[in-house]
Amino acid sequence: MAKKKPGSRGKKDRTYVVGVDLGGTKILAAVVDQTGSILSEAKRPTMSRSGADKIVLRLAKTVRKAVEEAGIPFKKVAAVGVGAPAPVDPRTGFVFHAPNIPPLRNFPLGERLGKELGLPVFIDNDVNVGTVGEHALGAGRGTKDMVGIFVGTGVGGGVIVDGKLRHGFRNSAGEVGHMIVGFQGLPDEPICGCGRPGCLEAYASRTAIERKVRAAIAAGRDTKLKTLLEASGKDRITSGLLAKALKQGDPLMLELMERVTTYLAVLVASIVNFFDPEMIVFGGGVTEALGEQLLEPIRRDAPKWYIQKEGADKIRIVAAELGDYAGVLGAATIARDKLA
Amino acid sequence: MAKKKPGSRGKKDRTYVVGVDLGGTKILAAVVDQTGSILSEAKRPTMSRSGADKIVLRLAKTVRKAVEEAGIPFKKVAAVGVGAPAPVDPRTGFVFHAPNIPPLRNFPLGERLGKELGLPVFIDNDVNVGTVGEHALGAGRGTKDMVGIFVGTGVGGGVIVDGKLRHGFRNSAGEVGHMIVGFQGLPDEPICGCGRPGCLEAYASRTAIERKVRAAIAAGRDTKLKTLLEASGKDRITSGLLAKALKQGDPLMLELMERVTTYLAVLVASIVNFFDPEMIVFGGGVTEALGEQLLEPIRRDAPKWYIQKEGADKIRIVAAELGDYAGVLGAATIARDKLA
Repeated sequence: MAKKKPGSRGKKDRTYVVGVDLGGTKILAAVVDQTGSILSEAKRPTMSRSGADKIVLRLAKTVRKAVEEAGIPFKKVAAVGVGAPAPVDPRTGFVFHAPNIPPLRNFPLGERLGKELGLPVFIDNDVNVGTVGEHALGAGRGTKDMVGIFVGTGVGGGVIVDGKLRHGFRNSAGEVGHMIVGFQGLPDEPICGCGRPGCLEAYASRTAIERKVRAAIAAGRDTKLKTLLEASGKDRITSGLLAKALKQGDPLMLELMERVTTYLAVLVASIVNFFDPEMIVFGGGVTEALGEQLLEPIRRDAPKWYIQKEGADKIRIVAAELGDYAGVLGAATIARDKLA
Repeated sequence: MAKKKPGSRGKKDRTYVVGVDLGGTKILAAVVDQTGSILSEAKRPTMSRSGADKIVLRLAKTVRKAVEEAGIPFKKVAAVGVGAPAPVDPRTGFVFHAPNIPPLRNFPLGERLGKELGLPVFIDNDVNVGTVGEHALGAGRGTKDMVGIFVGTGVGGGVIVDGKLRHGFRNSAGEVGHMIVGFQGLPDEPICGCGRPGCLEAYASRTAIERKVRAAIAAGRDTKLKTLLEASGKDRITSGLLAKALKQGDPLMLELMERVTTYLAVLVASIVNFFDPEMIVFGGGVTEALGEQLLEPIRRDAPKWYIQKEGADKIRIVAAELGDYAGVLGAATIARDKLA
């Protein structure tokens, strides 16, 4: 590290940023240097029902704790970036509503946390932030145009155009889980969490898989998923449990994998035919648990729908690399880019 | 017009461009001034089976004829833009294959026409060119991000990002007709012209409508479309014929309209959820023939699938304004922009 110049307190001397991943259950903060390396991290429960002011204080404490752990003076921090599980206005840091953190409804989180810390604070949607992380420091390094698809309880995404995160006209770009892939207008087709038929998320999320499993069990189907679910003592089918059933070659799980990977291939093809990006990065809990067994069939099937076949194999479909750190690293990247 | 300066032959003095719409049956060329106004036009049959060299000569003749009609000296033309019904490399003007003009397979059209005319020639896909026309001089004037959707025999499209045409990683962006909206993996679902199930074009193109009409007639359904088709003496169901049946309130046509507009609404919503553009412009023969009766239900239904409801009504869904002139005006715009 360069020797500290006494008296110099300009931006140039503030070489660190803090990236914060604000989740429904926990806050993760990390101090990130100019090379994108994490120097330290701190974690704290969100206590999502405790009131907006207390959440702001808890965020600030987590940031300060991470800086303390890094062993750097607080004044060396130039800015803070936050990924929030909510639609936000990225210019103002205003949070519209956060389903998993109810107190943050119509709340000026960026402004409030900025005042509390005495630092510029930049906020974006968590999936956008994860996409930026993978683009800047993960699987998408060096690409110009990239789409992130995060398959978990739901399916979220982010779009990088010309090296920059695309927000769109109303800051709602990247909602790949609500691209409509299977609409038939029939009374019995799957309905998405958003209330509409045909969305990708109604076919290829953990929630969609769980619904299919429970229906099969209710219909008396013999499946290892039933035994595993009972043994887990949990009330939901986790991604880890799906991975176990897959490893054991459970026939129902194999059927569901085919359905899920086919719809994810259809999603990829829709995106490719519309947007023709250089790379698609898959992340999220379901992707992490199922790994190449999820990605390989997508790579095989998506190009069948590409309307342009030339160069089909040049569009890379890869796994995210940063795992749980995509959030803090993406938030740190956003903070640094905004200062530049 | 400014007085001609003798001896000055630089680009600045060449204030006109020629836009060319190369179709499977005819070539339309127009001289366009700096304000985007058409000064003159010329038309000629493509004679699409006559050989690539002859097509180049015919294109050049049509350009020269348009310039003659404009009453300007040829040396005042700065460049020529061409919209071709084919995937092309817009940097080189190389045409990969043109289904409706078979001789233009793997043909350096830009280079050859450039040599023939002694002018810079810029070539792009016709639907991209139409989108540029509508953005620069038609319905999309002043928008930053716009998507063009052209519903005709097939369904094509183009994407404007930050005021510029998006080509994508492999120059194949904007293929909205092959966004997958209705995939079910069932044996009897509609198959697209591209050979795959689920594409928008399999549900909402003139071809898709015609297939449904013929199936209904074959099944003995009583419909005015049958009478109109027989009376037309044509071997295909034109957009004009569809408009007539709609005007007459034919029940089958009303059913098909609902299906088509629903799938187009689903397409719009998929694009909005992924890309969040400012405007969607609908053009093409089917749109022109059916007009507001096509657009109004799309405007009504698409927002039902928008995952972000705030500002839904700010995304404008409008009819194209340039009709058959989108091609020549878009091609002229591309030529002018490339020179700038």
